[in-house]
Amino acid sequence: MSEIQYNNNDPWSIGEAGFDAECLGKTESIFCQGNGYMGVRAASEERYAARRCGTFVAGTFARFSSREPPEIPNCPDMTGMDFWLDGIPLNLLTGRTEKYRKGLNLKNGELIRSFTWEAGTVKAGFRFRRFVSMERKHLFVQRAEITNLGQALELEIVSGINGQVTNGGSQLFDEGEKAITEKSYLQMYALTTQPNIPFAFTCLHLFYLQGRQIFPAADVRMSRRVLENRYQLTVEPGQTIVIEKMCSIHTGRDRDARRRGDTPEQLKARAVDELGCAADYSYEQLLAESANAWDNIWSAADAEIFSDDATDQPTLNFARYHMHIMAPDDERMNIGAKGLSGEGYKGHTFWDTEIFLLPYFTLCYPETAEKLIKYRYLGLAGARKKARANGYLGAQYPWEAAYPADGETTPLLGPPDIVTGRQSAIWSGLIEQHITGDVVYGLKQYVDITGDTRFLNAYGYEIILDTALFWAGRFEWNDKLRRYELRDIIGPDEYREHVDNNAYTNHIAHWNLSLAVSVYEKLEQNRPALLGRLKRKLGLPDGVAEWKSILDRTYLPKPDAQGIIPQDDGYMQAKRISLDSYKNSKQAASIFRHYNHEQIRKMQISKQADVLLLLLLLEQRFPKSIVKKNWRFYEPRTLHDSSLSLSTHAILAADFGESDTAYAFFQKEKDIDMGENMRSSDEGLHAAAMGGIWQTVVFGFGGLRIVDGRLRIEPSLPLSWNQIRYSFYWQGARLMVEAGHDAAIVTNRTEGKVVSFDAFGIPHTLNGSASIDYEIPVNHQIKINETRMEKA
Amino acid sequence: MSEIQYNNNDPWSIGEAGFDAECLGKTESIFCQGNGYMGVRAASEERYAARRCGTFVAGTFARFSSREPPEIPNCPDMTGMDFWLDGIPLNLLTGRTEKYRKGLNLKNGELIRSFTWEAGTVKAGFRFRRFVSMERKHLFVQRAEITNLGQALELEIVSGINGQVTNGGSQLFDEGEKAITEKSYLQMYALTTQPNIPFAFTCLHLFYLQGRQIFPAADVRMSRRVLENRYQLTVEPGQTIVIEKMCSIHTGRDRDARRRGDTPEQLKARAVDELGCAADYSYEQLLAESANAWDNIWSAADAEIFSDDATDQPTLNFARYHMHIMAPDDERMNIGAKGLSGEGYKGHTFWDTEIFLLPYFTLCYPETAEKLIKYRYLGLAGARKKARANGYLGAQYPWEAAYPADGETTPLLGPPDIVTGRQSAIWSGLIEQHITGDVVYGLKQYVDITGDTRFLNAYGYEIILDTALFWAGRFEWNDKLRRYELRDIIGPDEYREHVDNNAYTNHIAHWNLSLAVSVYEKLEQNRPALLGRLKRKLGLPDGVAEWKSILDRTYLPKPDAQGIIPQDDGYMQAKRISLDSYKNSKQAASIFRHYNHEQIRKMQISKQADVLLLLLLLEQRFPKSIVKKNWRFYEPRTLHDSSLSLSTHAILAADFGESDTAYAFFQKEKDIDMGENMRSSDEGLHAAAMGGIWQTVVFGFGGLRIVDGRLRIEPSLPLSWNQIRYSFYWQGARLMVEAGHDAAIVTNRTEGKVVSFDAFGIPHTLNGSASIDYEIPVNHQIKINETRMEKA
Repeated sequence: MSEIQYNNNDPWSIGEAGFDAECLGKTESIFCQGNGYMGVRAASEERYAARRCGTFVAGTFARFSSREPPEIPNCPDMTGMDFWLDGIPLNLLTGRTEKYRKGLNLKNGELIRSFTWEAGTVKAGFRFRRFVSMERKHLFVQRAEITNLGQALELEIVSGINGQVTNGGSQLFDEGEKAITEKSYLQMYALTTQPNIPFAFTCLHLFYLQGRQIFPAADVRMSRRVLENRYQLTVEPGQTIVIEKMCSIHTGRDRDARRRGDTPEQLKARAVDELGCAADYSYEQLLAESANAWDNIWSAADAEIFSDDATDQPTLNFARYHMHIMAPDDERMNIGAKGLSGEGYKGHTFWDTEIFLLPYFTLCYPETAEKLIKYRYLGLAGARKKARANGYLGAQYPWEAAYPADGETTPLLGPPDIVTGRQSAIWSGLIEQHITGDVVYGLKQYVDITGDTRFLNAYGYEIILDTALFWAGRFEWNDKLRRYELRDIIGPDEYREHVDNNAYTNHIAHWNLSLAVSVYEKLEQNRPALLGRLKRKLGLPDGVAEWKSILDRTYLPKPDAQGIIPQDDGYMQAKRISLDSYKNSKQAASIFRHYNHEQIRKMQISKQADVLLLLLLLEQRFPKSIVKKNWRFYEPRTLHDSSLSLSTHAILAADFGESDTAYAFFQKEKDIDMGENMRSSDEGLHAAAMGGIWQTVVFGFGGLRIVDGRLRIEPSLPLSWNQIRYSFYWQGARLMVEAGHDAAIVTNRTEGKVVSFDAFGIPHTLNGSASIDYEIPVNHQIKINETRMEKA
Repeated sequence: MSEIQYNNNDPWSIGEAGFDAECLGKTESIFCQGNGYMGVRAASEERYAARRCGTFVAGTFARFSSREPPEIPNCPDMTGMDFWLDGIPLNLLTGRTEKYRKGLNLKNGELIRSFTWEAGTVKAGFRFRRFVSMERKHLFVQRAEITNLGQALELEIVSGINGQVTNGGSQLFDEGEKAITEKSYLQMYALTTQPNIPFAFTCLHLFYLQGRQIFPAADVRMSRRVLENRYQLTVEPGQTIVIEKMCSIHTGRDRDARRRGDTPEQLKARAVDELGCAADYSYEQLLAESANAWDNIWSAADAEIFSDDATDQPTLNFARYHMHIMAPDDERMNIGAKGLSGEGYKGHTFWDTEIFLLPYFTLCYPETAEKLIKYRYLGLAGARKKARANGYLGAQYPWEAAYPADGETTPLLGPPDIVTGRQSAIWSGLIEQHITGDVVYGLKQYVDITGDTRFLNAYGYEIILDTALFWAGRFEWNDKLRRYELRDIIGPDEYREHVDNNAYTNHIAHWNLSLAVSVYEKLEQNRPALLGRLKRKLGLPDGVAEWKSILDRTYLPKPDAQGIIPQDDGYMQAKRISLDSYKNSKQAASIFRHYNHEQIRKMQISKQADVLLLLLLLEQRFPKSIVKKNWRFYEPRTLHDSSLSLSTHAILAADFGESDTAYAFFQKEKDIDMGENMRSSDEGLHAAAMGGIWQTVVFGFGGLRIVDGRLRIEPSLPLSWNQIRYSFYWQGARLMVEAGHDAAIVTNRTEGKVVSFDAFGIPHTLNGSASIDYEIPVNHQIKINETRMEKA
């Protein structure tokens, strides 16, 4: 069993010090590389039974059959390379491996794996380097440096393109065509299954012996879906041979290919041309070019922690690195629940984007955020399709989204039910409906933060009104109780299926409809022509009387006598059981080994933050005093079996002043992907958790919040932190927050932009190129001390 | 590098003494198990990168997409089992392995793999046993015996059904459904892609500790296309734990399922029921039952060699074993070029069946042969489709056949051409046309040997006449040379594409058409009603005048002044080059590293027997004296890059008295699959070579031949053999031949059946339950001595 290590001297470095052939998935996922266009798992060059290579191009989806949802296809592999040394295959399970290290540089995106290996009479040093270029989005460069530490060596290398890769056994490419161009470029051209997206995979091998380029003869080897070259070389003692493998991917869905209307032949030829141009530069030059593009990203937003714990800053860097490699620069696509780091969740987009990831981009990289939301505008087509299929007007966003126009893409069947032995239905695509409100929440937050009214006019109003139209139809009148309800729902807590009046969903739906009413009335006044066009296009009602009537009579679960908001109609009456054994289980969802969904619904068991998330997102709707009460009530009943749970708990704990409790949750957030469970990231890392980490730092400890369009900055640091520094954009101004335990400084770095915000109940106004500093009230500190005493 | 070993004391045993993780394909293929219904590669239980499991059900084909040919789907794997011993995964690349042996019992079909393994503090003895039941065609039983040779051991086992298996990366099953029945049966139900054949895979685990059944709790583990149970057990020092894994496969194409019209639910339930019934018996009982079925096969025909070389008899047993596990008992299917031992050639049927495999079945297991030929009768639908597609009347058999009605299924693209860099076209589906004559040859041989005129009336005549109709249209008139020709052809020698007048093809087509003329005239006389019906059904001409006219003027290549029959129009004029380096190459087809097809056609290079095969199959058409001359001419120009080449050379060499040369070729035949090239059988073993081995023994050294419907028995033993004994059926009589170097005894074991045959120019008549013995003429012996002197 190996483990993930931080580097105390370099907060941009993470590594693995030992090799574990059983747990390759861990670093394959968390050391994944990418550039928003493609993601490449950090699979080893040499093959092992558990090796799971993965190369994904954002926004490409294919169906294995018409009965299955579209999914992101795992592309043919170019990371694999086989080596034989005097006929002995390189395999770290055999021989003797020393000085093994696999490490990722989070700053420039370079992966380095090195070791010495001895087997029989053979001894050699290996150093593998690779990066996905942040500058040339189609380019992926690998480099193998092999130093002969023994006697004269016959080295055999087989390397090329392996299209036998599948998505968990499902093949999403056709057989394809293989070609060799100019006797050196290997190219595989294949179409995805449904639809037929053309992909060109191209690679080129360059060799250097003792720094001088050499041209060993290539022997072409081909088998089904495989096109490789075999090279044989003699390496004298002490010599170093370098193999550079330049790889590229182009698809017919690429924006430039679309614009040019490339034919297949043009696509193939362009791939060869571009790779040839890249090959005019050295590995170091291409890496420097890519590192420069990374630097431009880093300099656009700060996020620094001055902590006693040297793993805090790397964790934040890790989260930010991954958010950047998973975020597409293209509104036709979005971020998958595993980013581009694995096949998990089929590359589909969930509410994870709006609630967990979008805030980072909206605040720090608003151009990226705009595209992520525009995807939802394009997705109205699919949302309308889903609404119609379910008998509703308006737009009902899919729980899982692939192509914007697809509509619902959630699979229908899950694991076998422990009671019936049959595969259980996956209900979220049908009844987990809060996503429609979440999308609007993300949109509203974007508009509040950026002040981008152009976007609101062009896209935002239409989303807000069309989703309202859905909710207006979705609310059900309960004649007995004289109220509108949402029945047969799954809330954020997915362990409770088929519940009535999930508090989160009722509130977010009500909020969505309220927003639409205010938008409608505003447009009626100010932009009647725009409203008229939207009314005709969407079939909106004439006036908002009916919507208001629903809003007035919506059942909105309120705090009970103890201040607890009931999560759903049955929760408070359900039985409480001990969750200790499940909470301590290394495996998530271990509860399903004993109970099925129907049984769980009869118990007070939550998978994840539900009411707490409501308190975080719509805090203006509740008295501040109940937050802590609900936290204390729900946390012990929550298994945190979702990676979306911890950050909400951390932020709220910081909010009510228990920043050390919050910090304990922050520590747990690290473990979601970087922790000692070596299998939990096999299917890809947890994208939303990356956003959760950043939110915990900036929203939680940094105290940043946007409530009803107002900015608030109320830092609350844990004891082990001395200072925090972060920057973000607020309505066009770049703001920098520097906070310690006692005081905070907010600087407005944008000349000519005046900004206002609240801090601890006091409104501040800040001119451009100016700073404000203010004290952090003592009662915050007191609460921290209380917490410490409780724990001691 | 390991190697395949025979057991000097047991001619039914073959084994591998060492473990080589790089070369697993070798024994996976050649130790393959089966029963004609299914074939299971002998893949290890534990996983390695190069492990290629394979489970195939005869006569099931699916297309990955409509652009690709149908292929036999590699089924979900049930052979895999993962073991952890005190948390250490069983993996023979790690720790210390001793006493490794993997061996196949060719007599009862049982595979046993055993070793002791030590890793860290763990030491255990493993013994894996498994068989595919020859009695219960759906059943496959595995048994793992683990003896704790160290301290108390925590054993973890994960075993079940893994549907992530693909055909070289192409998935031919849908996602399927997983279910657990009665909390113990794991079942995966999946449909193949196109068409949708339902498959039910079912397995059950039984545990015994120190011989007593125990019931450890199962923890269900599921991932995409995978359904497994996980068990945890404590094994005390010295204890032996036994896991029996009972597995079954049922498909909707099974004859009984079709007959009953099973619904999916019935199919699934029946699979569970049947497996439950089997589980009432012990491993030993089920193995004994299967061994008994094998004994019935062996006792139906003898084939014994008394040789100085202890590997000769095992080779023959090996060939017979494999022919039986690959031969379906169902006329809707046939034998694939790799049997059921691998994905190679997509499970398709070639001329390999009629020319290489069918004679064994026709002579020894005529019921099986009848079904194999009836497949071709059903295949008339496909053959007509192919003829029409190519603009011909009649029936043109596909070069590669899957479902009988499919027609041509040869893939269109092969490896990249060394000159153009583009994938080369595969022409055999279009222009390798001798298959149509070969099918008729096999049919005629069956009728000659069995005297089965019922079959001829019901099926045979229609095949003969409809193929003749194709040939009559296919022959092209050369007005300049005033003759009918076949131009743009590939003969049996596939290295020469687009040749004119390949001698083999011209002759076999002419023979086919001649046979049709005699059949037509016979039916005209004796069965005018049958002929009338066939004329109407097939659109036959009114009378055979036109066919006769073609036959009279067909160009049939004849021996030249030196006695050499030109293989095709360009062969004698082509350049001769040295083939030494290619002949000595370990890799077949190494010539393509230097030349492409177009270049090879300009040289005297043959892949395999071509003219020689013509001399073997249609010996009545040529003077006996030219056989040796042509052998001496063509053999040095032949690379034997096809596994179909050696047996023809061996048989002819035995024919012209050089039985030691023949024996040298027989030795080479062993190497096709059993030899030291550890990669040549990766895609499956060479089915036709199994028939070639038997033919070399019985047709070559045993001197059995059928010419123009007459039986001939002229044994010619190699020096190292003392005696040969073989039996076969001739027109309903079971004949036994026992031959030494000087004399032969032929015994007719069937009461009441009179048999006539020729031997060395003398016709014999043999009554039932009688024997004839006769001398083998001295000139045969002299030739042997001549050969010896030449070689000395």
